[in-house]
Amino acid sequence: MTFQLHPRLKQDCIELGSYSLCCLLLMNDSRYRWCILVPQKPEISEIYQLSEANQIQLIKESSLLATQLAACFDADKMNIAALGNVVPQLHLHHIVRYRNDPAWPQPIWGHGTTKPYTEYELGEVMVRLKGHLSQLEWAEV
Amino acid sequence: MTFQLHPRLKQDCIELGSYSLCCLLLMNDSRYRWCILVPQKPEISEIYQLSEANQIQLIKESSLLATQLAACFDADKMNIAALGNVVPQLHLHHIVRYRNDPAWPQPIWGHGTTKPYTEYELGEVMVRLKGHLSQLEWAEV
Repeated sequence: MTFQLHPRLKQDCIELGSYSLCCLLLMNDSRYRWCILVPQKPEISEIYQLSEANQIQLIKESSLLATQLAACFDADKMNIAALGNVVPQLHLHHIVRYRNDPAWPQPIWGHGTTKPYTEYELGEVMVRLKGHLSQLEWAEV
Repeated sequence: MTFQLHPRLKQDCIELGSYSLCCLLLMNDSRYRWCILVPQKPEISEIYQLSEANQIQLIKESSLLATQLAACFDADKMNIAALGNVVPQLHLHHIVRYRNDPAWPQPIWGHGTTKPYTEYELGEVMVRLKGHLSQLEWAEV
């Protein structure tokens, strides 16, 4: 069985590219700078179901991404979570948080309504991401 | 500077013991089976601030704990998260989720009110944990 991105993630996110284990998505919600890592392994819904080598690769990619997102967007805090109650395919949220963002200090899920990026806003965010995210093989857009 | 558990975690949780990197806490909220790993390193609030060796140790301890909690309590899903918007000391939530729990499918934070364990309930949970959590150096209680 080969890896295929879950249709719900495909619908809600913009595919940015791939690291060696995970593909990297940008959640299409302009209220937050919110990226998602998805290990490109089929039929996995928990981190502990990955091989030990892939768990280590996952935390490396997660920490690289979190470091670079925090720098790129001058985060007050990073929120990192593997929930998967709605979309069972294993995916790891990385959300840039600010002390004055709409959900602070609560987690962001379940607060208010998604605001998709305008084309202009998305262009701006992409320029910043392209200046900060290294080691990513960018997808053709 | 030596590691000290944040007073808020000390207040809200029961200290179960230690792995090689993290101490293990049980959140004193009987609505959920909810454990927290706290790397015993001072002044750390993000996973990426740990050394690479400690990041690897963290994911090993997290996956061991998540596997054993899922088995111990027959989880439908594990939720794992490093948030830290309220308590800045790095800590990693591990929450056993069920399709019929009060917050499903939302994350548990911000839903309803904490229900501390009764002495009897806590005794029951401790017996189950002691039967399932290996590699943990249990604290004297």
